[in-house]
Amino acid sequence: MATAIVLCIGTELTRGELVNTNASFLAAGLTTAGFQVVGIDTVDDDAARVGAALRRAASAANVIVATGGLGPTTDDITTACVARELGVSLQRDEASLAAIRARFERLGRSMSTSNEKQADFPVGANVIPNPNGTAPGFSVRIGRASAFFLPGVPREMAPMFEHEVLPSVTPLVDEAYHQVLLRTYGLPESEVNDRLSGVEAEFGVTLGYRASFPIIEVKVLAHDRDRALAESRARQAANEVRSRLGTVVFGEGDISFAQALGAELVARGWRLAAAESCTGGLVGEILTERGGASAFFLGSTVTYDDRAKTALLGVDPELVRSHGAVSSEVARAMAKGALARFEADVALAITGIAGPGGGSAEKPVGLVHYAVATHEGVSEKHAVFSGDRHFIRLRACYAALGLVLRAVRGEALHLA
Amino acid sequence: MATAIVLCIGTELTRGELVNTNASFLAAGLTTAGFQVVGIDTVDDDAARVGAALRRAASAANVIVATGGLGPTTDDITTACVARELGVSLQRDEASLAAIRARFERLGRSMSTSNEKQADFPVGANVIPNPNGTAPGFSVRIGRASAFFLPGVPREMAPMFEHEVLPSVTPLVDEAYHQVLLRTYGLPESEVNDRLSGVEAEFGVTLGYRASFPIIEVKVLAHDRDRALAESRARQAANEVRSRLGTVVFGEGDISFAQALGAELVARGWRLAAAESCTGGLVGEILTERGGASAFFLGSTVTYDDRAKTALLGVDPELVRSHGAVSSEVARAMAKGALARFEADVALAITGIAGPGGGSAEKPVGLVHYAVATHEGVSEKHAVFSGDRHFIRLRACYAALGLVLRAVRGEALHLA
Repeated sequence: MATAIVLCIGTELTRGELVNTNASFLAAGLTTAGFQVVGIDTVDDDAARVGAALRRAASAANVIVATGGLGPTTDDITTACVARELGVSLQRDEASLAAIRARFERLGRSMSTSNEKQADFPVGANVIPNPNGTAPGFSVRIGRASAFFLPGVPREMAPMFEHEVLPSVTPLVDEAYHQVLLRTYGLPESEVNDRLSGVEAEFGVTLGYRASFPIIEVKVLAHDRDRALAESRARQAANEVRSRLGTVVFGEGDISFAQALGAELVARGWRLAAAESCTGGLVGEILTERGGASAFFLGSTVTYDDRAKTALLGVDPELVRSHGAVSSEVARAMAKGALARFEADVALAITGIAGPGGGSAEKPVGLVHYAVATHEGVSEKHAVFSGDRHFIRLRACYAALGLVLRAVRGEALHLA
Repeated sequence: MATAIVLCIGTELTRGELVNTNASFLAAGLTTAGFQVVGIDTVDDDAARVGAALRRAASAANVIVATGGLGPTTDDITTACVARELGVSLQRDEASLAAIRARFERLGRSMSTSNEKQADFPVGANVIPNPNGTAPGFSVRIGRASAFFLPGVPREMAPMFEHEVLPSVTPLVDEAYHQVLLRTYGLPESEVNDRLSGVEAEFGVTLGYRASFPIIEVKVLAHDRDRALAESRARQAANEVRSRLGTVVFGEGDISFAQALGAELVARGWRLAAAESCTGGLVGEILTERGGASAFFLGSTVTYDDRAKTALLGVDPELVRSHGAVSSEVARAMAKGALARFEADVALAITGIAGPGGGSAEKPVGLVHYAVATHEGVSEKHAVFSGDRHFIRLRACYAALGLVLRAVRGEALHLA
């Protein structure tokens, strides 16, 4: 399999002043093109360390894509380091110099002498023009590897990668791959993994897992010289994954849990309302994170204050007095209130203690009552969720949304 | 100078599926502590490449901080790779196993067998407990280097780094440092940077910037062999930063914008309500992200559906018909409705087009009307925010919260 290494050069990266989005952009682009990216190295603007990183990359991969260190200032040393590794001198490229000068003139500025070095390249390099900035890139061979050097500014780098680097390296790829991405909710990562034991060997695929709490993604990846065979193997393995995980798989590809739930609501012609308390608006935020939510989501109330539970949802203040705001009774009343006030087909309610304060022996931090009301009745559950405030709130939202999903599917709920 | 290398392990990183925020977080933390970070290496879940990366890091730096590959699944191989490099076997730590099992029990689940391996460590390792997840970390010596292995989930990793790794490695640094962290809202990063020009040279400090949109953090960092001198220089420079930025600085240290706003509301004895539409609950989520919000936040309504604007906030349906839901008139009516229904002292309202669909020539995607009502009147503004759905919603929330802050401070608003 053709291999690639991404090399990012810059002290601003090793000092942690920037999140390195170039690295993930390039790694994803090379992966999609069929390369196995075997490393992403980041080094500071230090000649010895840049040189060592170049030698390491050249010995480990077929393709090197490097970014950064092509600017006009004294700490931009990438070009000089490459020339030293190759044992060649630098040569000024008059066409590049003219292009840089013309760029400054278009901006109404005169070119500074420090920009001249941006037209210097190792002897034998191929220049890669930069339509969006002053720093051209270049490519050379280092040992067996094809090495490409691009500027670090993302909007300059990205088009150079897509229009110059990718077309040049794609012929090196001798294998095709196909990936199916399944998204799951309802099982911890370890149990998903347990249930899928043996799938890799049986189907000749690789399974990858990514947890974006509480969603677990399962990536089913097949490689083959033949693209159709890779796709067929990945698809067969994905079917096996679906059959082992059942309804835990809520969708394929980029779909969010809210979108999957929304699609089932729309299919049934139902519209959802929410009554939140400790989650503070997070249910609404999850439901509306992507566009299109108005097809199934009417709105929500966040009744942080107890009097608002009465004013907005019609909750009997006596219920709050006798059972407390965090109680089965109040959760049920909130859900019924939201169903009525929003004229909804289904409504969820959440009331709990997200912490860090506010807990007691009887009602500890993490205790959440959640309920779902339809015109057939109300189902209520409670749990003591662990984790910090953020986790407790996330778990509460997804638990309530999961209960909505069961109601929409007509699964037997204990209604009262 | 003491050196450090950050090592990130995970095929999801080399495939570019995640932006590696752990790398910049750790690099910034180590830099601030006084280390020279000489590399950030990322490798996939491949035993040979993890091993090579460990050897390289151990030969190049005093400290290695590694993340990832400590999970329960078969592709989590970090611990086994470390044991192989050290030539030791794995040993089960019964205390860690009990902690993982207890964690599952608190969640009301039984532990799966694949989680057991998360309690295995190389013989001789020091276990680093993980209060926020199932994967404990550990530390070992590899050659001359102190190596720390942490889980890849940022919210688990970060506290382990701050509370366990940093105190353990700081004695390796022969210089003291003091950092003052100022948090700002209201200016773009480039303008914050421009206004602080010259501060570094004048006070002998380093200024660092970190944008967590729309909040810009300014880190004022002073190094000195004498701790008191470092602190005094950092403090003087921070005072200068405050005087140059004025009210743009809303707090120091870990305070959130919502907490700063909340403190001013509490000081004035005011309680806030919100009426959201396109932001879908994000205002409530921002206000209640941290505990203690009940002291100043009564609640909010998310009236995604237009009829809910009438049912919950008393908005005259004729206003929606004649001006549209996204209009100055509806924003004002929503704010007044929230003020009344929640019996609040101040209420904000947001109605807009977050996209990606729903825009028109007259009302483009990004158009947001936002209003603040007090018992003295209503102030309303609108803007066309740029960016994608997520950015538009964030900008809208902070713009409205900024207007609330001005109202609380009694700054002249145009009330009508």
